[in-house]
Amino acid sequence: MKRCLGLLSLLIFPLPYSHAQSVDAKQAFAGKWISTVDVFSSQIYMTIDLKQQDRKLTGKFGNDALEGTVDGNSYHFLAKDENGGTEEVTGRLEGGTLRGDVIETPGSDPKHPFRYTFTATLVKTRSAAPPQRHEFTPTVFYRQFSPFNKSVLTINPGDTIHTTTVDAGGADEKGVRRVLGGNPETGPFYVESAMPGDTLVVHINKLRLNRDYAVSDDQLVERAMDSRLAVKMKDTGKDVRWKLDLAAGTATPEKPSEHLVKYTVPLRPMLGCVATAVGPTQAPPNTGDSGGFGGNMDFNEIVEGATVYLPVSNPGALLYFGDGHAAQGDGELNGNALETSMDVEVTVDVIPGKRPPQPRVENATTAIALGIGGSIEDAFRAATSNMASWLTDDYKLTPSEIAQVLGTAAQYKVAEVADRNVNVVLKLDKERLKTLTQSAK
Amino acid sequence: MKRCLGLLSLLIFPLPYSHAQSVDAKQAFAGKWISTVDVFSSQIYMTIDLKQQDRKLTGKFGNDALEGTVDGNSYHFLAKDENGGTEEVTGRLEGGTLRGDVIETPGSDPKHPFRYTFTATLVKTRSAAPPQRHEFTPTVFYRQFSPFNKSVLTINPGDTIHTTTVDAGGADEKGVRRVLGGNPETGPFYVESAMPGDTLVVHINKLRLNRDYAVSDDQLVERAMDSRLAVKMKDTGKDVRWKLDLAAGTATPEKPSEHLVKYTVPLRPMLGCVATAVGPTQAPPNTGDSGGFGGNMDFNEIVEGATVYLPVSNPGALLYFGDGHAAQGDGELNGNALETSMDVEVTVDVIPGKRPPQPRVENATTAIALGIGGSIEDAFRAATSNMASWLTDDYKLTPSEIAQVLGTAAQYKVAEVADRNVNVVLKLDKERLKTLTQSAK
Amino acid sequence: MKRCLGLLSLLIFPLPYSHAQSVDAKQAFAGKWISTVDVFSSQIYMTIDLKQQDRKLTGKFGNDALEGTVDGNSYHFLAKDENGGTEEVTGRLEGGTLRGDVIETPGSDPKHPFRYTFTATLVKTRSAAPPQRHEFTPTVFYRQFSPFNKSVLTINPGDTIHTTTVDAGGADEKGVRRVLGGNPETGPFYVESAMPGDTLVVHINKLRLNRDYAVSDDQLVERAMDSRLAVKMKDTGKDVRWKLDLAAGTATPEKPSEHLVKYTVPLRPMLGCVATAVGPTQAPPNTGDSGGFGGNMDFNEIVEGATVYLPVSNPGALLYFGDGHAAQGDGELNGNALETSMDVEVTVDVIPGKRPPQPRVENATTAIALGIGGSIEDAFRAATSNMASWLTDDYKLTPSEIAQVLGTAAQYKVAEVADRNVNVVLKLDKERLKTLTQSAK
Amino acid sequence: MKRCLGLLSLLIFPLPYSHAQSVDAKQAFAGKWISTVDVFSSQIYMTIDLKQQDRKLTGKFGNDALEGTVDGNSYHFLAKDENGGTEEVTGRLEGGTLRGDVIETPGSDPKHPFRYTFTATLVKTRSAAPPQRHEFTPTVFYRQFSPFNKSVLTINPGDTIHTTTVDAGGADEKGVRRVLGGNPETGPFYVESAMPGDTLVVHINKLRLNRDYAVSDDQLVERAMDSRLAVKMKDTGKDVRWKLDLAAGTATPEKPSEHLVKYTVPLRPMLGCVATAVGPTQAPPNTGDSGGFGGNMDFNEIVEGATVYLPVSNPGALLYFGDGHAAQGDGELNGNALETSMDVEVTVDVIPGKRPPQPRVENATTAIALGIGGSIEDAFRAATSNMASWLTDDYKLTPSEIAQVLGTAAQYKVAEVADRNVNVVLKLDKERLKTLTQSAK
Repeated sequence: MKRCLGLLSLLIFPLPYSHAQSVDAKQAFAGKWISTVDVFSSQIYMTIDLKQQDRKLTGKFGNDALEGTVDGNSYHFLAKDENGGTEEVTGRLEGGTLRGDVIETPGSDPKHPFRYTFTATLVKTRSAAPPQRHEFTPTVFYRQFSPFNKSVLTINPGDTIHTTTVDAGGADEKGVRRVLGGNPETGPFYVESAMPGDTLVVHINKLRLNRDYAVSDDQLVERAMDSRLAVKMKDTGKDVRWKLDLAAGTATPEKPSEHLVKYTVPLRPMLGCVATAVGPTQAPPNTGDSGGFGGNMDFNEIVEGATVYLPVSNPGALLYFGDGHAAQGDGELNGNALETSMDVEVTVDVIPGKRPPQPRVENATTAIALGIGGSIEDAFRAATSNMASWLTDDYKLTPSEIAQVLGTAAQYKVAEVADRNVNVVLKLDKERLKTLTQSAK
Repeated sequence: MKRCLGLLSLLIFPLPYSHAQSVDAKQAFAGKWISTVDVFSSQIYMTIDLKQQDRKLTGKFGNDALEGTVDGNSYHFLAKDENGGTEEVTGRLEGGTLRGDVIETPGSDPKHPFRYTFTATLVKTRSAAPPQRHEFTPTVFYRQFSPFNKSVLTINPGDTIHTTTVDAGGADEKGVRRVLGGNPETGPFYVESAMPGDTLVVHINKLRLNRDYAVSDDQLVERAMDSRLAVKMKDTGKDVRWKLDLAAGTATPEKPSEHLVKYTVPLRPMLGCVATAVGPTQAPPNTGDSGGFGGNMDFNEIVEGATVYLPVSNPGALLYFGDGHAAQGDGELNGNALETSMDVEVTVDVIPGKRPPQPRVENATTAIALGIGGSIEDAFRAATSNMASWLTDDYKLTPSEIAQVLGTAAQYKVAEVADRNVNVVLKLDKERLKTLTQSAK
Repeated sequence: MKRCLGLLSLLIFPLPYSHAQSVDAKQAFAGKWISTVDVFSSQIYMTIDLKQQDRKLTGKFGNDALEGTVDGNSYHFLAKDENGGTEEVTGRLEGGTLRGDVIETPGSDPKHPFRYTFTATLVKTRSAAPPQRHEFTPTVFYRQFSPFNKSVLTINPGDTIHTTTVDAGGADEKGVRRVLGGNPETGPFYVESAMPGDTLVVHINKLRLNRDYAVSDDQLVERAMDSRLAVKMKDTGKDVRWKLDLAAGTATPEKPSEHLVKYTVPLRPMLGCVATAVGPTQAPPNTGDSGGFGGNMDFNEIVEGATVYLPVSNPGALLYFGDGHAAQGDGELNGNALETSMDVEVTVDVIPGKRPPQPRVENATTAIALGIGGSIEDAFRAATSNMASWLTDDYKLTPSEIAQVLGTAAQYKVAEVADRNVNVVLKLDKERLKTLTQSAK
Repeated sequence: MKRCLGLLSLLIFPLPYSHAQSVDAKQAFAGKWISTVDVFSSQIYMTIDLKQQDRKLTGKFGNDALEGTVDGNSYHFLAKDENGGTEEVTGRLEGGTLRGDVIETPGSDPKHPFRYTFTATLVKTRSAAPPQRHEFTPTVFYRQFSPFNKSVLTINPGDTIHTTTVDAGGADEKGVRRVLGGNPETGPFYVESAMPGDTLVVHINKLRLNRDYAVSDDQLVERAMDSRLAVKMKDTGKDVRWKLDLAAGTATPEKPSEHLVKYTVPLRPMLGCVATAVGPTQAPPNTGDSGGFGGNMDFNEIVEGATVYLPVSNPGALLYFGDGHAAQGDGELNGNALETSMDVEVTVDVIPGKRPPQPRVENATTAIALGIGGSIEDAFRAATSNMASWLTDDYKLTPSEIAQVLGTAAQYKVAEVADRNVNVVLKLDKERLKTLTQSAK
């Protein structure tokens, strides 16, 4: 079986919220509510969008249109889904908390209704306070992109965090092992007002090396080898330690073999992982995994100056980052890049009410749609589809125009092939995007 | 970064154990120990294989050869890995528990040793008690193949369990919703003496339908569609309820459309999920996922009479099963087969000291190597590699002989393409295997 | 650049013909014409479908609607394509041959019209003569599925051919090398009345071995090996000769190694290649290639009793077959199956006016849609799309119904992975198809 | 059946030649001979490498070691292959032509020897004449990369050709249609002394536009679309004509739709096709195909200043080029780039005795290994394998060193996904290669 039946269908396309509401006695129910639903001890989020006209209620319960009535603090409504199913809801509004008892009758199985309850709060509006800068010293590092890890710091949209990350093996800037390896992350950071369905914006202000060595190895990953190359590489797999010369901006193997005595790579510090927590009904992925939520993307253009756009799946977004690389070739071909600790400063923001199908990255000159999938083929298609959505959503291009722009301006790079998921990116030069004409609104 | 550095390398190829030890004062340390290691609050398993000759200790600490000495209840040894790293261990044996303090010095980074502790117990030998039959009524259903879910029943190898499973959406044999959907599982069952590195054997004695309907839908999954077919299928995606006629052994759509008025499918009950828990350092996968541990394999030959072989990654193996299908075409093309509840009886056993690279299945006439991977290409290669290992391990075939047998007798089936991982199987008729000559030993 | 511009677009969807016309003075132009067009010394086929009402002409020039007039034996018409281009045609009908001079003005480039000429003849109707049986002894064997090889025999639809094929290396039933290796073919056979856009039906009446040995080897093909298996197989690649015991119905290695001393495979003679010639504007593929035209499909169910359906791309269809295998596992994993010569009897027929997107095969119990593509993924999608078209075309199923049938009844097999193209097949049991309700017409 | 049996195995790894021989009576047989073998009216090339010591002959017949004797102008030798097969050769040397009658006895089938003949000439040495510049006006354009097309000009290594190419649709610099579309090519050019096993070097001195428009379209190719994007693009597929402003260096759609009114793309003229003819036993591919021989690679860095390295498979190499694009995004996503005619000047050279497994390209700053295969996965592996061979052959790197260099410096680009084969390239910055230490020889 592939997908969940029933209730979860409510969640597939959460609606955008408007984040400003006036609170008014006659409008006490009106607004966008984020509800926490307890279903057989699993917790899920659902949005409820209510319009109140005197005693009449309309709006959406998840994706389903609802109609009902208000009676003082009590309310009652009926919502209908596309398959002929219904949700009958009764409850009360008390102290800013909307409670409800739901009887869900599946259209495909009307004889077996089931019941659950929820509690909801009005979606927070963005803080008007001036942006702050937070110095944060991590003491715990997580190994899953989980919504259930306790957030380490709460910030407002617009705020800046200055912190550090340990290397992929768990060693910090002093080389002290702090945690079991596998890309342990700094975070999660709770971002006020960020809600499921929003976009989290992570701008990397500074990304600096803070120690003088990195650890890597000398093998090639499975996906890079045909049978001839596999036979050639059969005896590799040793650790290789690299010296990082921060002043010169170069990396060199500490004990180079014959032909690499003068081999030198320019330092180009990057973050292998930037992620939001996955939704509460998903199994939290380990920090070697990637997906729509970002994660271990290992893309060597997530460097100082880049901005990363990620979908929000939980209240507060729950931002994680880690897995710094002093330098990395495309593909992360040997499975470990030049793994090292980092000094990181990011500014975080929220774009309410829309989110990309897969992560996006932007820098001064380029717009980049990531495609993350189980094979290079799937990732390639995902990147193309992600960029096509971008051109539709932000530039209003028609399908014909999308083909003309991609056909003349697409730049594809295979970003990573080392992990369970693969990452292919589609880049567009902003010079091209500037020549697009915005629709008259 | 792809893989964990350092400590975890100990675990990659756990050694086989012999499960019988004589306990003797002068041999108090000798034997196979399973240790639980606490590393920065992550827990991992490691095997320690000790030989004692008077005061001298030799053997293996994980994969690393060790040498040391015993002094009463105290001991001390040094183990060396392939990269020039060492583990220096000191500890005591008290009340059957072996405790140790470890200083691990990585070969790639000798200036940064780190410390951890372990406690170990002798690997249990297989019970000599006669096999038992357990009637088990599930009250909780898990949604991750996790080693951290509390086991619901402890059994011995050779025992039989009779129980039920809910459908993929969480509804039981009475159609009552018991849990959130997504293939909730019955289990985990703890199997005494099963240890990491062993094989768990799950023989399906009985697999019977216990209600008169199943739920499915009418779409095709992404992997099955080229662009022409995607356009054709663009408006599908509705739930479809099927009537199960247990007496006649057939399924029919409850409200068939014009051309399906007489459409009939034979019932062929199968389990979509059979799994052992993943190792404790992995993120527990959701019950829609599959891998070396088995899981949501959705293979329509896991039916009554089949035997499933799965690798063990935790003490007790921790067996899960669920996601019954009344019938399913190859590929599980519409994402949901005929999802229904089941009456299940399995007999469970353990093969110590070896485990397959990926799951295997056997029935009266066929040996089947599963290949689970992120694309059909990868799954195809994994299935071939799994069967080649089988022919090497159990039949001692040379590479040339493997090619001759596979070239003439391989049968490939695409088992499932609906989930994140794909499942391709390679089947060999046992009539062919019978004509293979065993090596004189 | 991917596809041809301009003229060729006329050919993409040739229209169905009705193959019976009455010839009548006032209707001399009416009917379906097959024209041979000479474009810069390349030759292409195009259909012209004319309706005549007194002096008025209407119909289709390729896919483009035409209107014009007749003046005695002379005519003139103008056809228009979807891109705003036109073809202006003038010519004469003399002695049953329609000649035309064309000025084609591309819509995308109206300033650069170009000119070509054609000659056309009325499409032949199917012969009413009783079917014949042809004994055919091949003297030449072709190594490309070319439309330019001289046909070796002309037959009528319904006729039967009895002949032989050499093995993949070019050796005949006496072991005499007759031609360079690489699947040399018997044929091409010209089938009267078969026209581009039709389906060629090849029923294999008899397929018998005619010598006592086959040649194979002991390697695995690239697509079957992950890196671990590639390293294991690195020293294989030797020829292996097999003894065919026609009386016992078994094959055994002539000089078996230790574990294969008693290894026995049942004989199951199959044709690796059945093909129609590709269209005249394609580069003729070598006889190791496969595609929509069939070719080297290496599918081990193309055996005695099977019927193969192939698209026709040239007048006469030009049927080729060869590459007999005494037995073959799925995938043809070692690149060469048990290659041998064959005694073949086929009955050939034509279904006018429709053709499958990729080859199809049928036997007594199963309908099989082949999917041929450059990767297993692509082949899998192609097979699914081919079967979906079959269910639409012949059973009128809606998209929802297609998903319900495939989801419950699909059987996928990986047929071949040894060549440039891969072959995956989707099989449906005819018992299922029988329960489909035909639309009332 | 996948590969040819028998004779062709001689050709798989042709040996390097030294191209200079002294001719001396007592050494009349000594040297590298290129023989043309007539096998059942197919023609293949084979190298014969003879060493003569008085009457004794040694050397290689293809890949097989030979021993024999000379008697005046007559000779006789016996060669042995790895499978226990032999070739017995007798013949005469007359007027510089070596003739031979061969009896080949396959090791796998010794009862069925077969016979063929060859004629051989000494491999030509490179001309010492000063390089020439050839003005060449094409009058014929070929649509297959065939060794059987008559060469249009013979040049020496080091010579320069100045000529033109028509666009992919066959239209020349005046917009006049000269040939049927599908990437018709200029050439083939015969390069003296180039022999099978050599590398052809094609340096693009000048690549200039010679008309003011290009033709493209507005669709996306199959490989770029997931199902969501396929549905979005379902109504595209129209031709789009672009205006080329050679002075400004820009391209713009001639009739832009709303959002593309100001859309502008910089001109970056490239050659979609550069190829050597395939070997004489292969079916000549159409000019939309690509492979080890180069062909329709559609790589947008094959521009002015680039050098292309291609394997030679025929005497004279037989160089083709065409399919100019005024500009093209990575992937050639809409199937047709900005297709146009070109003014081309190339300098051609030969590197004797070694050849790359797949094409390579070099420019002032980058070394580029192409990977051409049937899927993006296969092409990715092919590119990696091609670059690994390059680093082994030219830089003598060990497998460990290859992994370290690729892991830190690889740059992958998806070059083309529009055709039957896909092209992925692996680029290395020459700055990195400069820091590699050459082995002391």
